[in-house]
Amino acid sequence: MSLPSWNDGPTKSAIVDFVGHAVNLPPEDRVAVFDNDGTLWVEKPAYIQLDFLVRRLAVQAAADPTLATRQPYAAAAAGDLGWFGEAVTKHYNGDDSDLKVLAGGLLSAYQGLTVEEHAARVSAFFAEASHPTLGRPYTACGYAPMVELLRYLEANGFTCYIVSGGGRDFMRPVTTALYGIPPERVVGSSVGVTFTGGSLVTTGQPEFLNDGPVKPVRIWDRIGRRPIFAAGNSNGDIEMLQYTNGFRLLVRHDDAEREFDYTAGAEKALDLAETESWTVASIQNDWAHVFA
Amino acid sequence: MSLPSWNDGPTKSAIVDFVGHAVNLPPEDRVAVFDNDGTLWVEKPAYIQLDFLVRRLAVQAAADPTLATRQPYAAAAAGDLGWFGEAVTKHYNGDDSDLKVLAGGLLSAYQGLTVEEHAARVSAFFAEASHPTLGRPYTACGYAPMVELLRYLEANGFTCYIVSGGGRDFMRPVTTALYGIPPERVVGSSVGVTFTGGSLVTTGQPEFLNDGPVKPVRIWDRIGRRPIFAAGNSNGDIEMLQYTNGFRLLVRHDDAEREFDYTAGAEKALDLAETESWTVASIQNDWAHVFA
Repeated sequence: MSLPSWNDGPTKSAIVDFVGHAVNLPPEDRVAVFDNDGTLWVEKPAYIQLDFLVRRLAVQAAADPTLATRQPYAAAAAGDLGWFGEAVTKHYNGDDSDLKVLAGGLLSAYQGLTVEEHAARVSAFFAEASHPTLGRPYTACGYAPMVELLRYLEANGFTCYIVSGGGRDFMRPVTTALYGIPPERVVGSSVGVTFTGGSLVTTGQPEFLNDGPVKPVRIWDRIGRRPIFAAGNSNGDIEMLQYTNGFRLLVRHDDAEREFDYTAGAEKALDLAETESWTVASIQNDWAHVFA
Repeated sequence: MSLPSWNDGPTKSAIVDFVGHAVNLPPEDRVAVFDNDGTLWVEKPAYIQLDFLVRRLAVQAAADPTLATRQPYAAAAAGDLGWFGEAVTKHYNGDDSDLKVLAGGLLSAYQGLTVEEHAARVSAFFAEASHPTLGRPYTACGYAPMVELLRYLEANGFTCYIVSGGGRDFMRPVTTALYGIPPERVVGSSVGVTFTGGSLVTTGQPEFLNDGPVKPVRIWDRIGRRPIFAAGNSNGDIEMLQYTNGFRLLVRHDDAEREFDYTAGAEKALDLAETESWTVASIQNDWAHVFA
């Protein structure tokens, strides 16, 4: 039986109908792309990656008192996650000052590590860190219906990729265990790495911010094909969904009891879902279970 | 029977021995990377892609007389391929002036096309263009022993990628037919593309020059694993070979009769092959056939 965590209804039917037709296409054309934050795993009250980065900033502040008096280290040391949220809010209101301070801290947080050392830090974080309100480890914060959807598409000859604004090197160490998606099919944002002494070492330079119109560009670079299935949840997924020639799924976060209820950052995507006839998956109505 | 186009001898034995051990590794670790120009197909007397680009410059010069009087269009219109080779030679001697003029022309040669339109131009080129001295279509200029090696590695559970200084969007339309390597496993140089009106359109901006120390960086971005097998032929492959933790193969072009005999651009790589114990494949001695 397929998609047991999805309630019967128009959303599930639309997916099953589309896949039933898609199996007639050549296998190489059956490419599916999935956003991660808010589409495959929880993104509230803050991105999981922000927790990873703020912990690091706090460690840096504790090790170097000259850092501890300035942002973003002071906020990290004080556990003041509100400052980070506000930096983003100010950005959306046209004031980039705090966001620039934040970005500088985040970009240099893991500077100078080999990519293998960085991966080990990520794995250590996921081995112990838990969601602040859901009472479950981050590794159990993936959405069961979406993981089922990945398997369902694969069972029907699709190749699935993650295409996320989240960090490439933050996702890869856990995507195989959480989603069955291997590193070579994870596309994300990145800081630069440089080849030094036989190893790849993280720089503090931004490379890709894999969001909005950058997503189709990176899909072309990485896959070289136009997807026929895409799933997202926010305004940052709009261009990826528009680029997709086939089924477009938008996850709507409307279940305060089992997950979160919010539309901030998804307003335009939800409007487009209506005008462009994308399929909306309501967590409240369409998902029998949210988590495994 | 495996590798029939390879002569028996130490090179073939080294490959077979390595693969015999590698099959004990987890399949996901069996990653192999191959350079393209001079490793999988012919790169002399000029890169195949240069022929593609010069033809386009000549068309542009014919359509716009203001272009025809300046480089690189004048040389293209006159069929003066020597000018292009000299621009590269001057670059290696510290004079970048002509190379910059050339690069500007090449970058803008296909500006403003959708990626699908660009792919159609590439396919049209390969449908009709022939090698200037070997008397065979470019599509028959792949090295039979190397294509066999790709299949041999795959038969032993490897996943093979092309990692070339050549253009990503120049290679992808033909790599499946020539090498059995699909677009998503082709890593190359690129000009930027931008998402416009639902399509991806080529810009005139450089994006990646996938050569030298950039190759390991791009391997990490695209694959997220360190290869255990790499094949190259030139100085531009050195860092990719050094990054590879396993078998390093360097193709030596020493067969003027069946292909070409040259070391220019490979001097340092050939030296390192000796000091770092890479395996050298001599076309003259190790390949029973060069072409299919």
